[in-house]
Order: sequence, then C-alpha cells, then structure tokens
Amino acid sequence: MSNPAVCLVSGGLDSCVTAAIASENRNRLAFLHVTYGQITADRELHAFHELADFYEVTKRLVADIGYLEEIGGSALIDRSIPLPAGDPDRTEIPASYVPFRNAHLLAIATSWAEVLGARQIYVGAVEEDSSGYPDCRLDFFRCFDKLIDTGTKPETQLSIVTPLIKMKKSQIVLRGQALGAPLHLTWSCYRNVQRACGQCDSCLLRLRGFEQAGIKDPIAYS
Amino acid sequence: MSNPAVCLVSGGLDSCVTAAIASENRNRLAFLHVTYGQITADRELHAFHELADFYEVTKRLVADIGYLEEIGGSALIDRSIPLPAGDPDRTEIPASYVPFRNAHLLAIATSWAEVLGARQIYVGAVEEDSSGYPDCRLDFFRCFDKLIDTGTKPETQLSIVTPLIKMKKSQIVLRGQALGAPLHLTWSCYRNVQRACGQCDSCLLRLRGFEQAGIKDPIAYS
Repeated sequence: MSNPAVCLVSGGLDSCVTAAIASENRNRLAFLHVTYGQITADRELHAFHELADFYEVTKRLVADIGYLEEIGGSALIDRSIPLPAGDPDRTEIPASYVPFRNAHLLAIATSWAEVLGARQIYVGAVEEDSSGYPDCRLDFFRCFDKLIDTGTKPETQLSIVTPLIKMKKSQIVLRGQALGAPLHLTWSCYRNVQRACGQCDSCLLRLRGFEQAGIKDPIAYS
Repeated sequence: MSNPAVCLVSGGLDSCVTAAIASENRNRLAFLHVTYGQITADRELHAFHELADFYEVTKRLVADIGYLEEIGGSALIDRSIPLPAGDPDRTEIPASYVPFRNAHLLAIATSWAEVLGARQIYVGAVEEDSSGYPDCRLDFFRCFDKLIDTGTKPETQLSIVTPLIKMKKSQIVLRGQALGAPLHLTWSCYRNVQRACGQCDSCLLRLRGFEQAGIKDPIAYS
C-alpha cells in the first residue's frame, strides 16, 4: 500500500481542483479542513464533506483554530473590520488577510502527515491570481519545506505540493473540468452561505476565472 | 510606548525563566499559553496564570489546539502510548515527542504578534539539555524566523528570541534565581497534577538541574 497524501481542502474551487489532481496521482488521500470562525465556516465545512464524499475519502480531519478569532486582525474573522469591496486587481494586502494563516494550516497538515507517514501535503494555493496574501507565495511554501526538514523526525520525508501555484483562475477552472472535478460542490464566497454574493474578492476572482475559461459557473449567485 | 513582546509561557521552569528575562528587557509583555489535551493541561494553565499574575501581565491569550489530540502520535496526548520511563541522557526521540508541536506554538505567537505590533517572540526552548525533540533546536527557530519574514506583511518586523537555547538546566535555575523568578509557581511534570512524579523525563531533567545548581527545588514531589 502506498503512502497516503494529505490534502488541504477548504471547500473552495482551488482546493477542489487540487484534490482532483491529488486523486489522479494517488490512491489514498487524507482530507484536512481547518475552521477558524470565519463568516462562512459552516458552508465551507459542508462543501468539504461533499468533496470528501465525492472522492470517497474516509480519512478526514477537521481542525478548529478558533483562537484566530480571538487574535483578530482580519475582516474574515473580526466582524468589526468591514470586508472590502471586491477588487480582483488590487495589489496591496487586503483587510481579509488573516495574519500568517497558512502557517497554521501547514503546521496541522505536517503533524498529521508525520503521524500518518504521508509523503506529500497538497495545498491549492495560487500565487499570481490570488489576493496578495504574503503566505500564499511559492517562496513561503519552499521555506515551509525547510521548516519541515528541520523540525520533524529524521525519517520523515515530507514535502508540500502546490500544483496550482503558478496558474491563473481560468486555467484552474479548465483543469478542474478536464479532470471531472465536482466544481458544483465548491464554495468560494467570503460573505454569504446560501447564494454566493458575486461581489467579494473571492467571488470576483472566481467569476472572472469561469468567464475567461468560457465555462458557466455551476453555483448560484444572488 | 514601546512595542510589546509576546512570551510563550507553558508554566514550566524554562518558560518562567524566559519570562523573567523578557521582563528585564521590556515593559510590556503579552503572555501566550497553548493547550492541546496533554495530561497535565489544567495544572499547566494554572501555573501560566500564576506566572502572569506575578509579572502583572494583563494581555493573555490561551489558545486551544485540541486537534493535536485527534492527530495523536505522542505519549503526552495519546493515552494508549505509554509515557517512557525518564532518562535524561537519552539520545533518540522519545515517545513524548508531539509531532511538529513547536511550529503550532510559533504560528499562533506570530499571528498574535503581528496583530499586536510586537517585535519579539520569547520562547524558552533549550537545545542541549532538552529531550532531543527536533523542533527544539536553534536551527528550527532560525528557519522559523525566515518563515516569518516570508509569510507576514512587509512592515512586520518580528523575530524569535530564545535566551535559554544553549544553556544547561542548572544554568537556567541559577539565572532564574538571580532574576527573582517565581520558580515555586512553575510546573514541569508530564504525569501528575498535585505532586510532581519525580520520575518522568521532565522531572528528572528539572531535579538534576536544581541539584547541579546546588539549589533545592521549591515544588513538592511525591
């Protein structure tokens, strides 16, 4: 039996296509979802389980890092900070940045992967077509690879795989479609939980990606 | 007003002396305690608050990373793995190793520090006189410094300070005494919550440290 691979699955478009790629490469997958009091937490968890069901993944871990809510500092978790109007071309770091969030996600993935004997951690991070978060860049993931080498047992052989890191959203949509990924089960909106708002950064990036790919987004917008 | 410093305080001897050093260097401290379902969690939290009271630290964050218990893989959190008999001279990684634990602690400290505008994170890690954990070595902390540089906002100026990293336990005891640190309020035992067992790795290292320092350990042993 091959070593399993851990796949970080938020429930959004990018993590869905990443799971599809991991599923092509691997037999055994372990899905990790991290929740931290963000506005759409329940909706994302629902999407996570639907994606796990689709890929018949039984090994699932839902980790709660609710302390991020207490730390605050982001419009995604602190209701007193307004969520900025969407701007898919912004260059500064937006108010939705959750300080150093991806380090928490990767630390959890690494601990779990070490116990499972996994060799890879799949992460659906996207550098160029993303929202300018510093912890979403390839440099950050390469640096985290070194941290894993330094901070785990000598026999642990583990690296971070970011198959989408240099892709544009439209390429991600096309890749997902080609792999038969269940894009209709995903949730990307930062704001709403029933019908996507179509106006936050995440919705705008997603809609533009589908439009440029020439494919209709299968989820409902308000 | 100077920038605050975040200090990781488990409630043990090393974190107490680290807090004493941070207190010498700084006016404003923020104490962070991380709990993860370890056997002595409540006792350690009690020690944390007593130390915070002693140093008159009002800014306190207690972060629960209970998901580590679900991940398992360590005798400290998985009751089905026996806690090894103490051996302060062991060289292999003991069963009490919690996979990649310090990465979680530092990720939380970094997120909090970024929101607070702190410049330092104090950690009471000890390399030589420790238990052989890979995530307790200076290399690991230097690597984490790079991760912070890479993964936080450009304006965030933050580094990890490990004042005890090259010290022996006896030197830590002496330093604590010289600084008037409240060593009687600390808790180190992995096993017990009333009187320390005197037999686990942590107790043996502590007792040997006091013995070599020529000082009587002020806490009660069974």
